[in-house]
Amino acid sequence: MADLNFSIKGASENPTKFVAEARSFKIVIDEPQTLGGTNHGANPVEYLLASYAGCLNVMGHLIADELGFKLDKLEIEVNGNLNPDRLFGKSFTERAGFKNIQVMLKPYAEVTPELLKSWIKIVKNRCPINDNLQNLTSIEIEVLKN
Amino acid sequence: MADLNFSIKGASENPTKFVAEARSFKIVIDEPQTLGGTNHGANPVEYLLASYAGCLNVMGHLIADELGFKLDKLEIEVNGNLNPDRLFGKSFTERAGFKNIQVMLKPYAEVTPELLKSWIKIVKNRCPINDNLQNLTSIEIEVLKN
Repeated sequence: MADLNFSIKGASENPTKFVAEARSFKIVIDEPQTLGGTNHGANPVEYLLASYAGCLNVMGHLIADELGFKLDKLEIEVNGNLNPDRLFGKSFTERAGFKNIQVMLKPYAEVTPELLKSWIKIVKNRCPINDNLQNLTSIEIEVLKN
Repeated sequence: MADLNFSIKGASENPTKFVAEARSFKIVIDEPQTLGGTNHGANPVEYLLASYAGCLNVMGHLIADELGFKLDKLEIEVNGNLNPDRLFGKSFTERAGFKNIQVMLKPYAEVTPELLKSWIKIVKNRCPINDNLQNLTSIEIEVLKN
């Protein structure tokens, strides 16, 4: 199949609040007051974790279907730790982003533990967000002067 | 500073729709009908791009402040290409996620091109999402049987 292109665009409403458009959907991103924001939406790293959960959900159902079992429901928790020192410019010994991410999946299905092991292995292998988090991705940034 | 923990949790409402909670915020993730979904929200990879834009916005304002110029507004576009073959299990020659990501930043500020170059270099170095996209992150997945 041909490559698919996805895009979002938006603008700052204040130093921490950004409103993005993805097709017809509006996504409001902000920081909590404890991190200097106006708390009008989840923050960037929370959206990253939610994006990952959403992707695992889609892939979880797709692969269950391929493996021949019915996934009635899937509950997911995702959490991660990051040290804010680099973000705030206080120290550069640690990386800026999540150091590690933990995922808890609770599938509601009549399925053997063996089949569940195959399921999660295939889900990880084919999930786009899992790939972009676990591997290197090339990024080009262009700054246009107003 | 101590590590900060961020988390989201949620459940599937249908095979492509996932509703996540991040503190008091609800994030609705779905796929468009062209990708087999019910189109009740942006999809996982669009949320990933929006998360990146939101993070660049926060860091852009923070670093402008540190460098001593006023950033009146910041417009951001982010787009990426991925090949859906691995996702759909049709071929495994390409990676699952974005192969590359392009960012266009348009800062509204009275600032020299030289200072803008320093600005974007520092923004990239200290942006958590930029780090998690450009580098490897360790992930642990636990599957709890219902």
